[in-house]
Order: sequence, then structure tokens, then C-alpha cells
Amino acid sequence: MRFLVTGASGFIGKNVVAALRKRQHEVVAVSTSSAPGIVEHGLEWVQADLLQPGGCEALIDNANVSGQLHGLVHCAWDTTPGKYWSSTNNLKWVAASLHLLDAFQRGGGRRCVIAGTSAEYAWGGLESLNELRSTISPNLLYGTCKHSLHSIAEQWAKTNNVSLAWARLFCPFGQEEKGERLVPKLIKRLLSGESLPFDSGNVIRDFISVTDLGQAFAALAESKLEGPINLASGRDFSIRELVTTIATQLGRLEQVQFDTLPNPTSDPMRIVADVDRLTKELSWTPAATLEQRLAETCRWWQAELSSPLGIGNPAENK
Amino acid sequence: MRFLVTGASGFIGKNVVAALRKRQHEVVAVSTSSAPGIVEHGLEWVQADLLQPGGCEALIDNANVSGQLHGLVHCAWDTTPGKYWSSTNNLKWVAASLHLLDAFQRGGGRRCVIAGTSAEYAWGGLESLNELRSTISPNLLYGTCKHSLHSIAEQWAKTNNVSLAWARLFCPFGQEEKGERLVPKLIKRLLSGESLPFDSGNVIRDFISVTDLGQAFAALAESKLEGPINLASGRDFSIRELVTTIATQLGRLEQVQFDTLPNPTSDPMRIVADVDRLTKELSWTPAATLEQRLAETCRWWQAELSSPLGIGNPAENK
Repeated sequence: MRFLVTGASGFIGKNVVAALRKRQHEVVAVSTSSAPGIVEHGLEWVQADLLQPGGCEALIDNANVSGQLHGLVHCAWDTTPGKYWSSTNNLKWVAASLHLLDAFQRGGGRRCVIAGTSAEYAWGGLESLNELRSTISPNLLYGTCKHSLHSIAEQWAKTNNVSLAWARLFCPFGQEEKGERLVPKLIKRLLSGESLPFDSGNVIRDFISVTDLGQAFAALAESKLEGPINLASGRDFSIRELVTTIATQLGRLEQVQFDTLPNPTSDPMRIVADVDRLTKELSWTPAATLEQRLAETCRWWQAELSSPLGIGNPAENK
Repeated sequence: MRFLVTGASGFIGKNVVAALRKRQHEVVAVSTSSAPGIVEHGLEWVQADLLQPGGCEALIDNANVSGQLHGLVHCAWDTTPGKYWSSTNNLKWVAASLHLLDAFQRGGGRRCVIAGTSAEYAWGGLESLNELRSTISPNLLYGTCKHSLHSIAEQWAKTNNVSLAWARLFCPFGQEEKGERLVPKLIKRLLSGESLPFDSGNVIRDFISVTDLGQAFAALAESKLEGPINLASGRDFSIRELVTTIATQLGRLEQVQFDTLPNPTSDPMRIVADVDRLTKELSWTPAATLEQRLAETCRWWQAELSSPLGIGNPAENK
């Protein structure tokens, strides 16, 4: 099948492209930054800015030229660390996404998978977050915009006979992650040799390797599964376990000083996905454990930081 | 204060413009169809298509030239009778509205009133629909898109320190209403001399004259009231009462044959607003009764249909 992937040079998108290719699908990979062209048989890169007026319509026309698009995996969004939660760019991404869906459907597209977020759920409870039973109550602009897009997309899909799945993402990590985010920050700090004062690290999150996440996306895109679905590990993993696993892997456990900083008062205690839909309906499970994936990630950063440039991914990690 | 009104030549928008002018506000009236220009001191017409790429940004720049905009009353939307409930144009209007809000705020705007709909509420209960207590559960694309826009706009307003009110509209009627809609259809049928077979007419709706609705919008725009607010009469008015009132006014009661058609099975029994916010917080009540406004409307249609053209409003009533 032929898929359009937006945000294809982003952290998640590039793993989606790789996983779709591995499953023998044709991919039109869209990015603002990549040079256009056919890189290999079945993988075509298109440079496009979806936020430009008319950008989505032009993209779909363009992507349909060399073959009819069957599916869309829409990963593009503003993800600027620290800013995306409340940025007005969220409104622009909703608008662009609506134009994209409309153009995709009018161009003959039949299957959509869109990246949603765990931030659509009400946070603060201790239960695992279930796609249909848990309360939806985003409290910042990012979650509100993603959830509103979801509501519209669901109704639009039903009205226009498009098959739609809405992928809710939790905490992905892995190679080429932006340096300001948690896992890269921890690794870089530990590798710098400095000590790492920390709070108790007792809050629990749901981590998934971006490699596995890309594969889950591809399996979902290929399937006929509809509605919201958590793409997550479903595993309780405290920040303390995360820090300990990384520090142990790097041989730098002695630098970590737990319980020397106060615990943040506003952090929800537990944000973990119910993965019943993922494991039972999509029959998907990750190919490796979190520990294995964290070890891979540590090795990647060690290689990256010891490279001649010595600054990690120069485009993203300033 | 200086207000931008979108959809200003539409059924509701033109009454909003008139009411804001009556309250001595400056108005920039936006419409796809009107010739641009200053019609009178304080009222400036601008021709613009908000659905065109870049249309909203250009409009705001343009509207700010002759004076800083303070407020926005956003009435423009697709309202094509019979089609707007499920049209993909709803997505385009969400996208355009988001661009409009962003451009308005960046241009220095401080106060927004946006037209929402009773279709955001779950229909089917017998309780009056309350802005905060009633369940929100739109079941068609129009209501979903309006409600999603509302969610985003609320969060955006909070984040950007803009004052926002969301006006939920019920059943407006009045002069220049589109001929395919209920009140004009009833009047035209009765004036044609044909008999009017009808069901029991026992479903109850909330009607408001568009003249009064325009005034409520203006009062709301001028106020500091925030959040969702029903702009409605709050009065139970059955379709049977509506038909009887109109037919009596036209002297054609003998043409009406109630209980000769089966009742529609899917129509919600009662859709009536709780108007506590409107009457207590905004301290607004309509200047005339429904009966008086229906009489005015009948007289307007009688004059319109006996005019030389004999086709009502030629632009809208084909």
C-alpha cells in the first residue's frame, strides 16, 4: 500500500517511515527540511510546509502524481520542547490538519492514522488510561487542540467513509531525540561527569522506545482498526527506575543523588496506558524490553557525543 | 468600541451589525459578497473570503488600518440549508476560524464573541439546556466542529489573555431568512393558498427573532461576560403553536390540517435553552414577544412576496 507520512524527518515520523518500508509499503515522506526526490524504490521524499496557505492541497496533488495514496500517517506538529504545550502554533496545526484530511479524502485516500497524545486524558488518577472508559480532559492548549482534532476527525471519517485510527502517544525515547527532553538530558548530564541531584523520582510514566513506536504505528496503519488506541508499553516505570537504568548502563550510578531535591508538587503520580487494544485487537507487542532499548539509546548517545562534532544531532540539540 | 463582524451580510450577522451600530460602536462588517467601502461614519464594509488561504490574516491587517480593532463577533460559517449539518465545509470553517483568532489576537484584539449552536448539546432529554451542567455531545459534523472550535478557543483565550464568550444559538427566525428554512416555508406555503397537512406538531423548540438575537449578540460583545452562553428565548414553543400563530396572523388557519401526517420518529421532543446566564448575568431580555415578532415576520414576507419580483429575497430564496 502507498502511505503519505507527515513529519517524516521528525523523531517519531522517521521511525514510522522505516517501519512502513520494512513492511514493504510505498512511502511518500513529507518534511519541511528534506530535499525532495526518490531515495530508493518505494520511498519518495517531498519537501512541503503544511502550515503554508494551500500547502496541504498542493502536497496531496503532488503525492498522488506517481501513484494513488491509500493511507495517511499524520505525525507532523509543533513539538518545540517547553513551548509546544501552550503555543499558538497548536491552532495552526489543527487548521493544517483539517485541510490535510479534506485534501487527502478528496484525492481518494481511504485510511488515516493520526498522532494524538496521552495529554488528552484527565491526569491525576491512578488507573491505567483506557481509550474509551477514561475521562478526556486536557488541561493545556496542546492536549485540547489534539483532542478537538480527534473529535472532528472521527465525525468526518464516519461522514465520509474513511477508516480512521487515532494513536495516543505516551513517553517515547530513543536515538535522535531532542537534547532538551528528559532521556537525552539525563544521559548527557551523566556523561559530562557532573553529579545528578534528583528528587525521589517516584512518579510513574509509560515509556516506549521510538523504534517500537514506529513499528506500532506501521502495524496500526496497515490494519483496519478504528478509533482511539494507546501506542504505549503499558508498563509502570518510575523516573527513579529510568534514571537508575540509564546510570547503570553508563556505569555512572555513583553520580546520581536521589532524594536531594524536593519532589515537584504538580506532577501527576501515574500516567500509564491501558494497552488492551494494542496487544489484543492489534496483536502488537514491542520487539525488545525497555531495558534493552534504553541500553541501545545510551550506546547511541555515547557514540554521538564522542563523534568529531561532539554535539549530538546538530540540527536538533543546541 | 471598534468591532469586526464576520458573516455580516448573513441572516444573523446583519442584525448584529445593526445592533452594534445602534449602541454607537464602530463596525467593520465583513462579507464575501458586499462591495467594500465606508457606508456611513462608523460602519465600514470589507469584502473578504475567510476560506481563501491567507484570507484571515489579510482581513485583520486591512481592518486594523483605519483604527485598532477591540472586538470580534464571528458569525460566518456554512449555513446552506439541508447540507451544513454534514458538509466538509465545516472543517474549512474551523480552520479559518482558528486563523482568524490567531490573527485577531496578534493584531491587538481583546474581546471575542463566537457563534456556537444548540447542536453542541446532547439532544433527547427533557431538561432545559444549561451551558455548564448539560451534557455536550454533538452527533453531526456541524455540532462537532462548532464544539471543537469552542474547546480550542476557550483554552486559547485563557492562554493569551483574550476575553471570550461563546454564544449558543437555538432557532432564529425573521426577515430575510433563507426560504428553505421552516418559518419562511410555512409562510410561503400558506400564502400560496395550498392546504398544509401536518403531523401533531408536538415537538418543542426555542425560537428567537433574529432582530432580538442581533441585540443579544451586541449586548454580549459589549459586556465582559465569558464562557458559553445561550442566546435564546428560553420559552417552550411547540411547532403546533408556531404553525397556529403564523396561520392565524395570515388569516389562513383553515388551510392547516394537523394530525394528518405521521410524527417524525427521530426528532428530539424538546430543545429549549436555560437562559439564566442571559437574563441574570447579562441582564438581557428581548424587546418583544414571539407573537409580536412572528407577526412582523409574516408582514415582511407578505410585502416581499407581493413585490414586483415576487420571489422574496432573490439572492437567497431560489
